[in-house]
Amino acid sequence: MSDRKLTVGAVLYPGFELLDMFGPLEMFSMIAQDPVEILMLAEGDEPVAAAMGEAIGVGPRVAPDGRFDDAPPVDILLVPGGFGTLPELDNPAMLQFLQRAGEQAGLVCSVCTGSVLLARAGLLAGRRATSNKQFFALATMENAEVQWVEQARWVEDGKFFTSSGVSAGMDMSLAVISRLYNQETAETIAQRAEYSWHRDADADPFADQLNEAARAMGLV
Amino acid sequence: MSDRKLTVGAVLYPGFELLDMFGPLEMFSMIAQDPVEILMLAEGDEPVAAAMGEAIGVGPRVAPDGRFDDAPPVDILLVPGGFGTLPELDNPAMLQFLQRAGEQAGLVCSVCTGSVLLARAGLLAGRRATSNKQFFALATMENAEVQWVEQARWVEDGKFFTSSGVSAGMDMSLAVISRLYNQETAETIAQRAEYSWHRDADADPFADQLNEAARAMGLV
Repeated sequence: MSDRKLTVGAVLYPGFELLDMFGPLEMFSMIAQDPVEILMLAEGDEPVAAAMGEAIGVGPRVAPDGRFDDAPPVDILLVPGGFGTLPELDNPAMLQFLQRAGEQAGLVCSVCTGSVLLARAGLLAGRRATSNKQFFALATMENAEVQWVEQARWVEDGKFFTSSGVSAGMDMSLAVISRLYNQETAETIAQRAEYSWHRDADADPFADQLNEAARAMGLV
Repeated sequence: MSDRKLTVGAVLYPGFELLDMFGPLEMFSMIAQDPVEILMLAEGDEPVAAAMGEAIGVGPRVAPDGRFDDAPPVDILLVPGGFGTLPELDNPAMLQFLQRAGEQAGLVCSVCTGSVLLARAGLLAGRRATSNKQFFALATMENAEVQWVEQARWVEDGKFFTSSGVSAGMDMSLAVISRLYNQETAETIAQRAEYSWHRDADADPFADQLNEAARAMGLV
């Protein structure tokens, strides 16, 4: 961790999920103890479009602050999920960046299917991790060396914080803030964001419902 | 409402609050009944930087899809809050746009101090509305013709949905979806987003705490 500021590197790719990205960044942006710098990082220089439902790359567009190939090391690396995850699983530029930046970062956080990208990059071998429950099969098929946890709002293992889908990223990022600073700082931020923090990492109110929906759709 | 698609116009300005914007847009992006088109609208053509805490214009940058002066009418107009609200209260381009787009839109939604901009644009006269509780004095000083409601997660009055701070925008946008489609659609989206929806507009778990904090800071 830098003495002077806290740097957050947020990984952009076409079809990332809006709230996976901006829920955690909202919480990090409210840290008052240190100056926070958020760097939006992408493969290229052009704005990157979020997912709209299942459509990749037609949502709001975010301008990168830096490219994968020359991004500086960061204190926190944030990898969102989204329908755009699937093509990125076969993108060498993404996987090489995650491997390098993930090894350099003080903490690595993912939301939803972002953990599948981390697994593909080889960062989660031997670790406990979670992912979106509606697409849990995508995770478990990915890497048998990862101890995938099906019932969890988020999972903390060493420097890796992986969360369940979409909104769970906000709960996870408050846990990250609690680790970096203290519980009171996280509580203050949750209150200022008027967010009802799910403080229990193991309580997952959505896993059963979403598994049922996924089975009905033939996804698992 | 268009027969063919649902258009959402989201109002960008320097120092908008990330979650005010992208919490509601996440929920709208998950509507499956109609194709949804989100238009990020700004005064100019350049990417617009979000707030970082109280700093305006140094956060993640979002690329506009259209300019205020030639934006088409939309079904839903979304106005986020943030520390950047204050300078916008004296920006004629913003106020003229809100007046025109707000009158044309089927529904007008605001989060946090976004409602103060709507009030300044004259759209809320005679209406019930709410705002961020930590900066509630900003709202009540703004326009005495507005019936400001201090204890509310969100307030619905005709085509206007105004919400409390930051996270409350997600609850409000699910109420918008419930009005446009039905309760089941909103419940399904909340579940897919793994979001614990605060369904009661009148229950405001943060108003008292934030008022106390604001008094301690001399803000009210």
